[in-house]
Amino acid sequence: MKLATLDNGTRDGALAVVSRDLRSAVEATTVAPTFQLALENWAATGPRLFELAERLEAGSAPGAFAFDETRCLSPLPRAYQWIDGSCFKNHLRLMALSTGRDPEVEVNSPFPLMYQGASDEFYRPRGDVPLPREDDNIDFEAEVGVVLDEVPMGVTAAEAERYIRFVLLINDVSLRAYVKREIVTGFGWMNAKPSTAFSPVAVTPDELGSAWSGGRLSLPIEVSWNGELFGRPNGSQMSYSFFDLIEHAARTRKLCAGAIIGSGTISNAEYAAVGSACIAERRAIEMIELGGVKTEFMRFGDRVRIEMHNSEGRSLFGAIDQRIARYDRIQHQA
Amino acid sequence: MKLATLDNGTRDGALAVVSRDLRSAVEATTVAPTFQLALENWAATGPRLFELAERLEAGSAPGAFAFDETRCLSPLPRAYQWIDGSCFKNHLRLMALSTGRDPEVEVNSPFPLMYQGASDEFYRPRGDVPLPREDDNIDFEAEVGVVLDEVPMGVTAAEAERYIRFVLLINDVSLRAYVKREIVTGFGWMNAKPSTAFSPVAVTPDELGSAWSGGRLSLPIEVSWNGELFGRPNGSQMSYSFFDLIEHAARTRKLCAGAIIGSGTISNAEYAAVGSACIAERRAIEMIELGGVKTEFMRFGDRVRIEMHNSEGRSLFGAIDQRIARYDRIQHQA
Repeated sequence: MKLATLDNGTRDGALAVVSRDLRSAVEATTVAPTFQLALENWAATGPRLFELAERLEAGSAPGAFAFDETRCLSPLPRAYQWIDGSCFKNHLRLMALSTGRDPEVEVNSPFPLMYQGASDEFYRPRGDVPLPREDDNIDFEAEVGVVLDEVPMGVTAAEAERYIRFVLLINDVSLRAYVKREIVTGFGWMNAKPSTAFSPVAVTPDELGSAWSGGRLSLPIEVSWNGELFGRPNGSQMSYSFFDLIEHAARTRKLCAGAIIGSGTISNAEYAAVGSACIAERRAIEMIELGGVKTEFMRFGDRVRIEMHNSEGRSLFGAIDQRIARYDRIQHQA
Repeated sequence: MKLATLDNGTRDGALAVVSRDLRSAVEATTVAPTFQLALENWAATGPRLFELAERLEAGSAPGAFAFDETRCLSPLPRAYQWIDGSCFKNHLRLMALSTGRDPEVEVNSPFPLMYQGASDEFYRPRGDVPLPREDDNIDFEAEVGVVLDEVPMGVTAAEAERYIRFVLLINDVSLRAYVKREIVTGFGWMNAKPSTAFSPVAVTPDELGSAWSGGRLSLPIEVSWNGELFGRPNGSQMSYSFFDLIEHAARTRKLCAGAIIGSGTISNAEYAAVGSACIAERRAIEMIELGGVKTEFMRFGDRVRIEMHNSEGRSLFGAIDQRIARYDRIQHQA
């Protein structure tokens, strides 16, 4: 089953079921007005949503209409909990090497690296990303994420799969100019992580077939920058699975229904062949291999597109396709 | 004006107006069903809530009843945004000195130290705090916080005051066993900060008189542990004001209506006279002055009480009064 949230002028949008081929959709607000409320009452809403999805596939859902990704908000336009991992050793190793740090410290962390993200308003998957300064070193991070049902404190990785309701794609927009000064505080990201965007469509794990296995999604994530392919690494080399991330995040607290957990920037040891999923990693590779950086960060007007196709070439989640825009405070307050 | 959220069996509770002396209350759900919705529509709801508060003070509010702090959830039982500062130089200095770190690094930070907190379910002010292990080194942190209206990205400290709608007290429950391993990652707190509690009552700044000035609250916060006074430091020595914290948090993103920002553990240079607001600081003082630690962390069954009185001896926010409980997963899932 695939779900999306349509912009209806409210903060939380309107829940919709989307067809497998992303061509049609039907409002699901009679089952649950919003994605958040569907997740909070999943025992009641889940079966009814699956039933509606079947009718949509069969062409017998009344009120079905052509699905338009540009009308979507992030599936959860805002959330009560968003936690992002950094689970690709290749990425951690390259970032450490390029800055003269010992790569073994982070690469061999005995627990997953995760940061508590800001969840109070996510970007639209197909909208502008308003940011104040190019000098903040604007970057994208293409990731996979999961949306959870309520997870009890103390859950183990072995039990975690049952709490994963949806899988989606993520652009964890990052401002690299703040990373160095924030990482030394130990307090985590405040200015370096402005907000985040998610794919137009969230997908139940059963839609992903064998590509979803062991709490990892092995299909390549396709990242383009201004229309040019930037990288297509896949999620198979996640050093901690999503099950491990759930166990770690729930060690001393519960996680709410609607909590989102991200994988961190996807990265593969075969980066020479598949490229990277963020600019910072490409710059790290340039620094290591060329002794200096060639690639600059994003400029106002630049676009980033993040998408994933299955082995039959079908887009699974729709595309995140965003334009970096100069933030104009007067305009945004008007 | 004073507001509270009453437990009505729902996740977000029922909004109520509370009298200045905390003796009576009246449901405000006809103005806004929840605190969050009141804040999201403040231009409409604010004046009506102030009017209801006036009627309550005058004894002419229909349906008024005796206010009972034990019926309260945290004013926002969950929130979309919770950010906590660490803004008391005395605390930063003591913590660094006791662990052999250079105190000048954190004390002279050119920007406020703040961490992104988990906001998906806050503890009740008068309930149990279920935690899995005493060995996690259970601690309290008594703080002051502010609840905001929507803050535009790029706001300056000079403009920030107008976005502060409420002031409240905080118990930022902390698990010290995780601090050392999490601070070196740079990714912030994941296991070390389970969840947080807030005072039963949130108070508009005008209720605080001259004690609220320059974005700081100068009254002592009274902290008791198992009925014994532990400390009563005051907020006047906050090195960055709440206005500075708002500027910093909103540098690269907006803050939603209902965002909460905390001061960090309150701490005074006169700690020998006024004590501390968390156990970790008392232990740091023991380490520095006695060469070893005497005070242990909290045990299951221990209580912590956090309250603030004005110069006339009147409790301003009601009391956070919590019992540390052994988390029983079976029971919590039933």
